[in-house]
Amino acid sequence: MRVALGLEYRGFDYCGWQTQPSGCSVQDRVESAIAKFLGMAVNVTCAGRTDAGVHATAQVVHLDTDIERDAQSWVRGVNAFLPDDIRIVWGQPIAAEYAGEFHARFSARSRTYRYLLLNDAVDVGIERGLVGWFHAPLDVAAMSAASEQLLGEHDFSVFRSSDCQAKTPIKTIYALDIAKQGKTIVLTIRANAFLHHMVRNIVGSLVYIGARRQDVNWLGELLVSRDRALAAPTFAADGLYLAAVEYDPKFALPAFRDRVRC
Amino acid sequence: MRVALGLEYRGFDYCGWQTQPSGCSVQDRVESAIAKFLGMAVNVTCAGRTDAGVHATAQVVHLDTDIERDAQSWVRGVNAFLPDDIRIVWGQPIAAEYAGEFHARFSARSRTYRYLLLNDAVDVGIERGLVGWFHAPLDVAAMSAASEQLLGEHDFSVFRSSDCQAKTPIKTIYALDIAKQGKTIVLTIRANAFLHHMVRNIVGSLVYIGARRQDVNWLGELLVSRDRALAAPTFAADGLYLAAVEYDPKFALPAFRDRVRC
Repeated sequence: MRVALGLEYRGFDYCGWQTQPSGCSVQDRVESAIAKFLGMAVNVTCAGRTDAGVHATAQVVHLDTDIERDAQSWVRGVNAFLPDDIRIVWGQPIAAEYAGEFHARFSARSRTYRYLLLNDAVDVGIERGLVGWFHAPLDVAAMSAASEQLLGEHDFSVFRSSDCQAKTPIKTIYALDIAKQGKTIVLTIRANAFLHHMVRNIVGSLVYIGARRQDVNWLGELLVSRDRALAAPTFAADGLYLAAVEYDPKFALPAFRDRVRC
Repeated sequence: MRVALGLEYRGFDYCGWQTQPSGCSVQDRVESAIAKFLGMAVNVTCAGRTDAGVHATAQVVHLDTDIERDAQSWVRGVNAFLPDDIRIVWGQPIAAEYAGEFHARFSARSRTYRYLLLNDAVDVGIERGLVGWFHAPLDVAAMSAASEQLLGEHDFSVFRSSDCQAKTPIKTIYALDIAKQGKTIVLTIRANAFLHHMVRNIVGSLVYIGARRQDVNWLGELLVSRDRALAAPTFAADGLYLAAVEYDPKFALPAFRDRVRC
């Protein structure tokens, strides 16, 4: 039986999603909790391998097991063994007719990441670790105009970390929205898939444009260059969230919960 | 010279606002940072003495010093010596004509506290420590109707902690608003002043009404009883914020920053 689980977690006490020998990752905690719940070792596969310090409001994973548990039992049972900053928010056995087809990573049609960026002279306090920060006033209209050059299918090598294991640097960005809420800039980006550090590298270069260190056409020039050294530094992990993963509606995965301002 | 400072802080690593011999409080950190900035010891007086684990988006303090610093220097200078979950967001020397009159605590016309309460089967994950939680569905309309009995001047002994040092249990609630945003109930309460644990005790009893353990008229009966033992237990500190302090506009204090959803 294939089971899908929906998770949220706060990334700042973990070394990222992916399992590590030291056991410091979110995956390590999730697999350990499920093993205690089921009484047997399991491997889980996720939709988006978030980096150290990156959060998820909507991570999706799957695992295979012969042990039957109902949806509510998956949630309560696994949460009982998880640290309190990682929560299973839903559990769903995949219907038998689709169980061979559903895969948390390969069935995902798109991923959406969100970046929260406080744009204020004073750094983040209460939401420390949960919101990024830039001190000088940013021109949100310029950032928004510039971002249009990223839409569609491109070779995103210029925004790719040297550690990236993706087979191809060619990805498709379906939507990129930049909005300001009070003093916080909210950047939402949806693509078929992302390269390692791609969102944080895009945020870094958009901030250069917003701060008028580069002009609005710079992103197009960067894409053509394919040279990571020309782009801005990788922005902090703090404000980054895996915010949605899209699947074929036939899998009937439950919804995640809405967020509220602190 | 009297100086007013506006602060925000995340309360979960501190034993509350008020100074303690162990140095575990927000006040201890703030006074220590200001002492390093000015090169001399100071005492600060706050508008609202938040409890252990309680946050502030809008705490106001004052201090007296002969050392002159401009507004920006107070912010940057003190923040350089503060832990990163406590931030000075503005600093303002009080105009000479009002310096003898302004007092962070006694000049405050009202305080506003906000409580964020996740109402969901699954506990808080990402916002752990920043949002309270209740598992069973709450009737927000019933809570809202019940809360009207608290408006105005009352003897709030029933919601008063045994540790409370206030001279009188008689306080005036000017406004109490309960709204739902997604799965989070946002309770906002403005009063001339609050007793120790008063907001958390009110939240606890409102939750009993929302969960239909008590009827809508219960709060009125509790007020008349003046018996703490009859009310619900004190609710968790997690979701509680000192969210505003109101002063005479003549003091011209700067605004705090808006919050954004995680």
